[in-house]
Amino acid sequence: MASTTKLADYLFQRLRQLGVSSVHGVPGDTTLPLLDYIEPAGLRWIGGANELNAAYAADGYARIKGLGVIVTTFGVGELSAINGVAGAFVERAAVVHIVGTPSRADQDSRRFVHHSIKPGDFRTFGQIYTHVTIAQTRLWDPQTGTEQIDEVLSQCVRHSRPVYIEFPVDLVSAVVSNDGLKYGIKVPDPEPLVPRDDVVNKILHRMYHSKQPIVLLDGESRAMGILDNVQRLIELTQWPTWTTPFGKGLIDETLPNFHGIYRGKYDDEAARTFIAATDLVLCFGPQFSLTNTYSFSSVPKVEVTICITDTTIQIGNETLRDAPAKYVTSSLIKKLVPSNLMRYDPYPNLPRDSLLDFSEVPDNHLVTHDHLWRIVGSMMRPGDIILGDTGTSGHGVREMALPKHARMFTHATWLCVGYALPAAQGAALAQQESIASSEYFGITDARTIVFIGDGGFQMTLQELATIIRYNLDVIVVLINNQGYATERCLHGRNQAYNEVAPLRYLQAPAFFGAQDGVYTASARTWGELKEILQSPNLNSGQGLKMVELVMGREDAPKGGLQFALRMQKNMEAGL
Amino acid sequence: MASTTKLADYLFQRLRQLGVSSVHGVPGDTTLPLLDYIEPAGLRWIGGANELNAAYAADGYARIKGLGVIVTTFGVGELSAINGVAGAFVERAAVVHIVGTPSRADQDSRRFVHHSIKPGDFRTFGQIYTHVTIAQTRLWDPQTGTEQIDEVLSQCVRHSRPVYIEFPVDLVSAVVSNDGLKYGIKVPDPEPLVPRDDVVNKILHRMYHSKQPIVLLDGESRAMGILDNVQRLIELTQWPTWTTPFGKGLIDETLPNFHGIYRGKYDDEAARTFIAATDLVLCFGPQFSLTNTYSFSSVPKVEVTICITDTTIQIGNETLRDAPAKYVTSSLIKKLVPSNLMRYDPYPNLPRDSLLDFSEVPDNHLVTHDHLWRIVGSMMRPGDIILGDTGTSGHGVREMALPKHARMFTHATWLCVGYALPAAQGAALAQQESIASSEYFGITDARTIVFIGDGGFQMTLQELATIIRYNLDVIVVLINNQGYATERCLHGRNQAYNEVAPLRYLQAPAFFGAQDGVYTASARTWGELKEILQSPNLNSGQGLKMVELVMGREDAPKGGLQFALRMQKNMEAGL
Repeated sequence: MASTTKLADYLFQRLRQLGVSSVHGVPGDTTLPLLDYIEPAGLRWIGGANELNAAYAADGYARIKGLGVIVTTFGVGELSAINGVAGAFVERAAVVHIVGTPSRADQDSRRFVHHSIKPGDFRTFGQIYTHVTIAQTRLWDPQTGTEQIDEVLSQCVRHSRPVYIEFPVDLVSAVVSNDGLKYGIKVPDPEPLVPRDDVVNKILHRMYHSKQPIVLLDGESRAMGILDNVQRLIELTQWPTWTTPFGKGLIDETLPNFHGIYRGKYDDEAARTFIAATDLVLCFGPQFSLTNTYSFSSVPKVEVTICITDTTIQIGNETLRDAPAKYVTSSLIKKLVPSNLMRYDPYPNLPRDSLLDFSEVPDNHLVTHDHLWRIVGSMMRPGDIILGDTGTSGHGVREMALPKHARMFTHATWLCVGYALPAAQGAALAQQESIASSEYFGITDARTIVFIGDGGFQMTLQELATIIRYNLDVIVVLINNQGYATERCLHGRNQAYNEVAPLRYLQAPAFFGAQDGVYTASARTWGELKEILQSPNLNSGQGLKMVELVMGREDAPKGGLQFALRMQKNMEAGL
Repeated sequence: MASTTKLADYLFQRLRQLGVSSVHGVPGDTTLPLLDYIEPAGLRWIGGANELNAAYAADGYARIKGLGVIVTTFGVGELSAINGVAGAFVERAAVVHIVGTPSRADQDSRRFVHHSIKPGDFRTFGQIYTHVTIAQTRLWDPQTGTEQIDEVLSQCVRHSRPVYIEFPVDLVSAVVSNDGLKYGIKVPDPEPLVPRDDVVNKILHRMYHSKQPIVLLDGESRAMGILDNVQRLIELTQWPTWTTPFGKGLIDETLPNFHGIYRGKYDDEAARTFIAATDLVLCFGPQFSLTNTYSFSSVPKVEVTICITDTTIQIGNETLRDAPAKYVTSSLIKKLVPSNLMRYDPYPNLPRDSLLDFSEVPDNHLVTHDHLWRIVGSMMRPGDIILGDTGTSGHGVREMALPKHARMFTHATWLCVGYALPAAQGAALAQQESIASSEYFGITDARTIVFIGDGGFQMTLQELATIIRYNLDVIVVLINNQGYATERCLHGRNQAYNEVAPLRYLQAPAFFGAQDGVYTASARTWGELKEILQSPNLNSGQGLKMVELVMGREDAPKGGLQFALRMQKNMEAGL
């Protein structure tokens, strides 16, 4: 006789097999029975303050652990989460979205149940979700339920994009075979059935004949599962390597041939000149959106570029298909004869990200973006996870040179304001779990540090309560510049619509339930910031810490924002 | 030469004509130029803390003023708001959702701009929004722009459901004729082209021949614009009148023939027996969802019911179309000969909502749901707006007998947790504006009072900042029962997933920026609550006030929640 379990248990067991330890979400009437199966399956329930925050948190968790999960309820819950799931789609975080739906009896009878958009309509939300997920399934028949689950989870893992599972509440305890759990989920073998030596050889040929090659790493490389291979190729070639904003923080930035983000038209002349003269850009995982490419100015010229995406290999103007990126990159490593490669000698003089010391800024001067990020970069430790919210923070953190095993992420294309705080909750949770299971590079004292503006903070601030409740090691750096500074740079710098309500930010930890003595501090000057960054209370102990940085209303990191602000002022002056 | 204006100005002028004074929203890069036109058109910008809250607020505003507006940005903004707009669709609040989208040049060139779900795709979000709005328009050609705007606004007003306007950022300043503004928007004449005396006479016939008639008022009556007519019919007939939860708070509840909400299987036997024996239910604006009808137990029998909806008149099993509800109800008033109607003599002995005095509860006893709502009901003043969030609060407020001109609303079918606080912001704003323009029944000291649980509060609490910023007269009563009490009643009463993070709730006003001395208080006992409700500081002065009520984890108002809890306990006990 086949061994059996319940369908809900099967789902959660499967998720656990895939490396998930925690499930985010918010309960609702049609999810409650489902939630009963989470802890017995060895998973932890992380109750979010609301669904959008839970979705952002699952995204942050997925970026660190590979896979994140949210459970929401029919209609109201899933629609509240959709913006976070859409972001996971665009930025390729593998999030499994499980929606507890009304019973099959209610659906079959077309009763007008609450949370439905029209009487008897149970399909609208699933239809909406086809736009923002890579695969969807509607559980209905227990006899096919486990295969349906496996199929969408496989898509989720393979594409590193969100999937959607409708789980009618009466099906939770349906008895199913658990045979499938004996085997891992089927994900495509990296080896293609038809060998593609042709593709690999073409790339090698271009690599061997380049006189001025570079590497450009973009963020979809993480989703494609090729980061280890890319890292190895960067080490083997020793070619100058840049990332995009989306690629920042994904590989070892201490390598001598790593040069930070290529900022296109906003970059130093030395970098621009060198890249303009290059005859080969080996580009991994591109996502060439306007905001990830400095208004397309950092997109490499097609004719000198080899783009390795997860569906095509683009060599100049030639598009080759059905050569999986994992296979191609690992084949390159195997076949590459480094002595056939151009070796820079001497290595070209190209700018690198650097850190700044407090000795270089006067104690009594106000904190400004021009130096801030290289200063705070010096507080980062190996294994830290750094997030910058959409806005000046997101631009700023990209200036930091990162220590080994540090991770950094910001929205690069979806660009939600308010994303980073809940995402930090998820990332810190994943980090805490990885440290606890000794799977974190031997590091035990890493933190998650999130930089966020006052406008972004107001959007999702209740997730501080979750950070406090689960005692996550998060440092929140709140940039108080009295409004949406990025919008101000773009348009309407003096308009009231770019203001936000003035909160007493440092009261947040106490309000959200932190224990007495939680570390909070505020700085306006470099001297004050120095004291904070050097404080033992910031640098030791666990849980939440919060720092407020009071900054100028129109101050912004160098690059596009400052450019836009200058344009705006010129227009006002009639220039 | 035709007089001209800019397309954005046309839109905002038109909204102003329709009675809108304030626009809710959150800025984004493709909305900023649009926002420049709000104040010059005589409207006020109300910056929300996030888009979901802004949508809820626009919904609350619309329920009081007739029409609400939100402006959000492409992709990230509109998806964050969608759950609030879907709720407005279901619960029929007239919300105009304006989305600032990328320029026509960007869209035509299919560039991969930020906030888009796929490179070059600008249509996905508009497609999603077709599911949750009654009409949509994509502005593109200035020559048809004003007609497109008028058409969707007309749909919004007519159906009292949300509409969606895509506004490319480069079109904001397109020059258009403003001739249209000289005339009001065309909404259908209440008089049908074909007279429907047949329908009116059929209804009158049934009314004249009924021996035991009643009136049932449901919430869509507000959307249909027939409240005044219904009120008059209730006065003319003097028939016993009940509402549904969705209909509560829409008509004068001090009428002697008003009996509160009919609770179906949970109601008193006297009401159930009387309604079971009735031979005519004159029902206005039905929305017979499970949660609005006590699991369908309060739905009247088809054969004795005349249902007046906005698309049909249902007389027993006969469905008549194309007889507008406004026309039918006003014709009934005109034609009705009251002396032909059954007159109850003596008037039947039917229960009415009542209030309770503190003398009936011992000072040192804990506050409990069984008496709470009739006690706090006694603090309500004419013109107050009362909201109860989905959960025990939403159930509880429905027990109150309301003074004249008071309004009450809760979600009845969409049932979002967390809706009520931002909705209270919008309602209080509409109330403040109506009082300021002397259009509020001559009342000047009305407040908005919102009851919300700790779970709901956490979802949207940042809207307190908006309430404080715009100095709205809102009393927040926070029910602290350590979690989602309604979910606890339904399932998993001891499960951790029904807990929420414990906040220090009364620190909220100070954290969110209230001035020193803002009134806050906490009560566990009737004595403490008495002191609060009688405090001059609660009952005078303007702005935010906040009261925390600490209540039992498993306490709930009578009715369905208590029933579900008993069922759950019986199951645990193996009964």
